[in-house]
Amino acid sequence: MLRRNFLSLSSRTTGVALAAGALAPRVWAAATKSKPLGVALVGLGNYSTRQLAKAFNETTECRLTGVVSGDPVKAKRWAAEHGFAESGVYNYENFDSIANNPDIDIVYIVLPNSMHLEFIERAAAAGKQVICEKPMTVTGAESRRAIKACEDAGVLLSVGYRLQFDPNYRALMLARGTPELGAVRYVQADMAFPIGDPTQWRLRKPLAGGGAMYDVGVYCTQSARFFAGQEPVAVTAQEYKTDPVKFAEVDETIMFQLEFPNGTTANCTTSYAFRSNSVHVDYQKGVGTLSPAHSYGPIAGTLNNKELAPREFSQQALQMDDFARCVRAGVESEVSGLEGLKDMLVVDAIYRSIAAGSKRTLVEPV
Amino acid sequence: MLRRNFLSLSSRTTGVALAAGALAPRVWAAATKSKPLGVALVGLGNYSTRQLAKAFNETTECRLTGVVSGDPVKAKRWAAEHGFAESGVYNYENFDSIANNPDIDIVYIVLPNSMHLEFIERAAAAGKQVICEKPMTVTGAESRRAIKACEDAGVLLSVGYRLQFDPNYRALMLARGTPELGAVRYVQADMAFPIGDPTQWRLRKPLAGGGAMYDVGVYCTQSARFFAGQEPVAVTAQEYKTDPVKFAEVDETIMFQLEFPNGTTANCTTSYAFRSNSVHVDYQKGVGTLSPAHSYGPIAGTLNNKELAPREFSQQALQMDDFARCVRAGVESEVSGLEGLKDMLVVDAIYRSIAAGSKRTLVEPV
Repeated sequence: MLRRNFLSLSSRTTGVALAAGALAPRVWAAATKSKPLGVALVGLGNYSTRQLAKAFNETTECRLTGVVSGDPVKAKRWAAEHGFAESGVYNYENFDSIANNPDIDIVYIVLPNSMHLEFIERAAAAGKQVICEKPMTVTGAESRRAIKACEDAGVLLSVGYRLQFDPNYRALMLARGTPELGAVRYVQADMAFPIGDPTQWRLRKPLAGGGAMYDVGVYCTQSARFFAGQEPVAVTAQEYKTDPVKFAEVDETIMFQLEFPNGTTANCTTSYAFRSNSVHVDYQKGVGTLSPAHSYGPIAGTLNNKELAPREFSQQALQMDDFARCVRAGVESEVSGLEGLKDMLVVDAIYRSIAAGSKRTLVEPV
Repeated sequence: MLRRNFLSLSSRTTGVALAAGALAPRVWAAATKSKPLGVALVGLGNYSTRQLAKAFNETTECRLTGVVSGDPVKAKRWAAEHGFAESGVYNYENFDSIANNPDIDIVYIVLPNSMHLEFIERAAAAGKQVICEKPMTVTGAESRRAIKACEDAGVLLSVGYRLQFDPNYRALMLARGTPELGAVRYVQADMAFPIGDPTQWRLRKPLAGGGAMYDVGVYCTQSARFFAGQEPVAVTAQEYKTDPVKFAEVDETIMFQLEFPNGTTANCTTSYAFRSNSVHVDYQKGVGTLSPAHSYGPIAGTLNNKELAPREFSQQALQMDDFARCVRAGVESEVSGLEGLKDMLVVDAIYRSIAAGSKRTLVEPV
């Protein structure tokens, strides 16, 4: 099991994690008197620039104290703009010396997918707690290595799954098994958008690992598993391509169907060619819907014919603060490396089904 | 091609059909001075009782003038309640003598699916115009026989597809190819409900032909084809069953994916085990949604982020009046027998894909 070394954090660990049942939202003690944990962002692309940077305006348990970038000018500008010491600036070569920086507790990896495993392993070796953007790696086998690296180093690993901290997204999961709604029988989850710039790394297999499936298809595997509350036992999947030039290396559109042990099924679509962003959950006694379902917010929808209240906040701030509290308390995040692995096992099976042209079972033990 | 004999109707044929482009709704001359055409309902089950009977309160081009039932008491009660002569009452044995009833122009078949072909053939042989409930037959081969029978008899054949006459459902089709929205790239269509009484004919294969796919899955094939505006060239399908006792003879849940010649794709779900009733259409420049999508009304949704106005009326009245006008004008209905055949060819391919466990092409010429 997970061995952890919290010695380096013990002086700061004052937050208390309340016991959280499988269906209950994690509830933390409201106020933390501790100094916020320091976070270093690895990779200063769009997601760091447009989402994570501003999320730190809302975090209370962590703050930006470092960046890792191949562009020293850009990195120093981040230090100036976000008010952290230039000693928090690293490049990909000297990244490992981050081990010696006491202002950085958490490394948040926001690199192209195929680089995730390497930087998880290097961050863990540096003794830092790790958040890695989704998909955690590009295969289930890589995810196992990532988990082992963090276990061996005694650090926590989590995935940048932000929706699990959005109350509207979460509401449909919390409704499962309640007297009002009962068990979940079916999940439909779509996430698709027409991708722009044909030169971006997301369309290069060596960097991205795959196409829409890796980028936004994991929202669908997440939604299906999150709302079904189980792990799928079998999958069928279909791939479609309308632009073989733009999508020469990676998948354009994938549809997939999941079967869960209790008979619940899911039907999902992901694409880089068209728009779709919704969730439908059928419970024994009612229906939940989300549209938009997987955006940065606000997530809107209905539960049992009542509208969910639109709520504006940074999902990423909630996600990072939760991880900071997990680190302090020494407990696994709800979106731990194991969650990342489970999604990658489904993704692996999806590609196996496409290659075979027929149903595949998820035989690998998690 | 279709040969028609309108001699028996010529004295009544005063309505004028305006030319209707492929994308334009059919527009009829507003006022018809003719006497309404007479309709006989064959089968007095739920759909006749709860939907069609009251639809005649709204029809202007046709009226109820007969029923065909195995229950003479019930049939005479219908005659009394709906104010038609008892000479309009038939049973399944003497049905063919309906040929001699000048008050009945149209026979509307509302029987279990496997009986459709027989009664289409008998109605055509009696020289009556035919509306048949969906699914038109239980196989594509049967649909070809139904079409031929009506062609040979010189009568029109249409399917009880009511949604094509609902302005909100139709709005998403009409938006296809407009400068505002552009081409359709993806359709998601679901129709599912938990079926009740385990003893009903819909769960008996000899009567129903199949399960959810035949009953409500054809709404999904209809939506996919209607909004894509093309005929699919390939299909994959998956079947799931959680209750092998209740669904011993027929399918419980089927998901299927369609590919159209221009690269448009569709992902659909139908089930007798859970609830889902929605359409999502992605156009190049926007999105259309329907929820509920396939109900008797009102159909609600959005087009390009604007809400469709909820509209209350009998879809069945619009559908029957349209067919009455088609009969008068001697033009095929938009929901003709050919539409029914095209759906059955897709349904045939869906079952072939399930049996094979992999993708099937739709090779049969229509």
